[in-house]
Amino acid sequence: MNKRDYNFSAGPAVLPEPVLAEVQRDLMALPGVGASILEISHRSKTFEDIIGQAESNLRQLLAIPDNYAVLMLQGGARLQFSMIPMNLMGGGRRTCDYLVTGSWSKYAAQEAVKFGETRVAWDGKPTNYDRLPTPGEWRLDPKAAYVYYASNETIQGVQFSTEPESGDVPLVCDASSDFLSRPVDVQKYGILYACAQKNAGPAGLTVIIIRKDLLERSSDRLPGYLNFQIHAEAQSLWNTAPTFPIYVLMLVTKWLIADVGGLAKMEAQNRAKAKLLYDVIDASGGFYAGHAQPSCRSMMNVSFRLPSDELTAQFLHGAEERSMTDLKGHRSVGGIRASIYNAMPVVGVERLRDFMLEFRENSDE
Amino acid sequence: MNKRDYNFSAGPAVLPEPVLAEVQRDLMALPGVGASILEISHRSKTFEDIIGQAESNLRQLLAIPDNYAVLMLQGGARLQFSMIPMNLMGGGRRTCDYLVTGSWSKYAAQEAVKFGETRVAWDGKPTNYDRLPTPGEWRLDPKAAYVYYASNETIQGVQFSTEPESGDVPLVCDASSDFLSRPVDVQKYGILYACAQKNAGPAGLTVIIIRKDLLERSSDRLPGYLNFQIHAEAQSLWNTAPTFPIYVLMLVTKWLIADVGGLAKMEAQNRAKAKLLYDVIDASGGFYAGHAQPSCRSMMNVSFRLPSDELTAQFLHGAEERSMTDLKGHRSVGGIRASIYNAMPVVGVERLRDFMLEFRENSDE
Repeated sequence: MNKRDYNFSAGPAVLPEPVLAEVQRDLMALPGVGASILEISHRSKTFEDIIGQAESNLRQLLAIPDNYAVLMLQGGARLQFSMIPMNLMGGGRRTCDYLVTGSWSKYAAQEAVKFGETRVAWDGKPTNYDRLPTPGEWRLDPKAAYVYYASNETIQGVQFSTEPESGDVPLVCDASSDFLSRPVDVQKYGILYACAQKNAGPAGLTVIIIRKDLLERSSDRLPGYLNFQIHAEAQSLWNTAPTFPIYVLMLVTKWLIADVGGLAKMEAQNRAKAKLLYDVIDASGGFYAGHAQPSCRSMMNVSFRLPSDELTAQFLHGAEERSMTDLKGHRSVGGIRASIYNAMPVVGVERLRDFMLEFRENSDE
Repeated sequence: MNKRDYNFSAGPAVLPEPVLAEVQRDLMALPGVGASILEISHRSKTFEDIIGQAESNLRQLLAIPDNYAVLMLQGGARLQFSMIPMNLMGGGRRTCDYLVTGSWSKYAAQEAVKFGETRVAWDGKPTNYDRLPTPGEWRLDPKAAYVYYASNETIQGVQFSTEPESGDVPLVCDASSDFLSRPVDVQKYGILYACAQKNAGPAGLTVIIIRKDLLERSSDRLPGYLNFQIHAEAQSLWNTAPTFPIYVLMLVTKWLIADVGGLAKMEAQNRAKAKLLYDVIDASGGFYAGHAQPSCRSMMNVSFRLPSDELTAQFLHGAEERSMTDLKGHRSVGGIRASIYNAMPVVGVERLRDFMLEFRENSDE
């Protein structure tokens, strides 16, 4: 087997090793099927069982109520940036509210503008998106078609600890980078969606959990693939589904249930992993400067800066030598970003923690 | 290794065994990379090399000129059914012409209607799509934004042997089910596109070859993911690309170049495979009745009926016993459909031929 590093990529990102091992074992042919998962029809009994199991695992992990549909589509979060206003805003007759807390909610709001009046209810730009709004800081429109936010901003490393209160207005959440990392109360959402390539599988799949009454807002005039109602009626098999990513999602959710023991246990692990790194940052006397304000810190993406670009380059080089990769921060924030999703083992984070301590010690001399 | 059958699925469909073997070998980690193809960033050097190699292989196999862009997107042919009229028709100011020769061109025309005046220039419905138009039979609008057709209809098994003549009007072709099965002259097309899951890779990827001057028609008001111009400028990395299907496409095109020896040789193999089955049909005295008229027969999807539903069921059962699967015809045509894409080995088609001969002989008694 080729050597595996500790991969801190923000996405596509590390997957659980037992999942990869099962994919590899059965790659040439699924047991008793006679063909690879890459070769079987999306309408075969075998695949119907796989997509059914993926949905049933998601329903179990997140306690998804019956009045919510689960869709598995292509096109990533970017396609959702369009689909959500196109389906929910009644062809521009209604308005929508966006909480802009980082790069991804900003891109989403920029797209919504094309489809109707889009109000930015709060914008974290003045402090380079290092914090989240407090409940009194934003005012929502009670007549809005929906309120949109991103539960975790991958680039800035800020994460909501609970859902913003939206009253009777449907709450729409991009959970791409913290999906399945902790329990959430699905009933608080109109739509909860996530692309798979952080915590749920490979690139090419987006999971959309949508309250069924919202499906009635989809117009027949929408582009067919962009119509939530069509996909819900066809149980995500209106067209050829992304069969392989759905298979991996099924294996990842099985791993979360059987190996991890559910999302409460996953959250405890994630919290402990993040604490290892934030503790080093907080005890570093400013050598490591976290981007997010402490109350808004992400458990998934730990963004911090070093005192100089030279030290940052040395840090990245030293990490690579120790088999830790993809730690370079996004250019809009700079510094280091350690993405420590569900599948990053504690031992990987401990290795990074040890290196951070060692690097700082050596830099002090 | 789990047993592999001969898989005659219409798509997702059989892939070359050497491709599957390489995917399996490196599934846990690509050589020298330290992470699985499922885990690496779409912006990593490793992936940039992979997508670059996939494009360069396609350009070599199809002799794609420099004034064409190659896009690799999500959403399948179904999303193209919307994207093409949305990008090319100038927001409904122009009209378009469709040749309706089977189920897929029919669905495409039904979608185009939403975005502007859509003319059906020819419709094969009167004979249940068992033939293609002859050049004199349709009249195209010389002012149309484009002329659309499907080079091969997967369900009905009819295939154009050459491109319809469209004069100065850009020709748009859905080549989903015969892409890379034979050489084509790309310069005849405005857009040549194909979803991957028949001849080019797994589900979740669509390749769009588009003449660059057509990109100027894309409006800024389009949904971002549906804008060809945006994807062309970003070289298909505007958002997270479907990294794994693009990796498999790279391996499949490498196989076509290095193992098969190019598309002319691939076509010769495909022609020989199809002849094995059509010869049995033609010599069966009507026992096997081909759906397509002989001059329009597909080299990819061989559709035929047996004298009764009972015999069809017996045939399918006997084929399964002999490790030949997915031969059931689509419900709109009935009978049997043998999809014999590039990766179906001659030995698999010979086995089916032998069974067809044996089955007929036993039924004659």
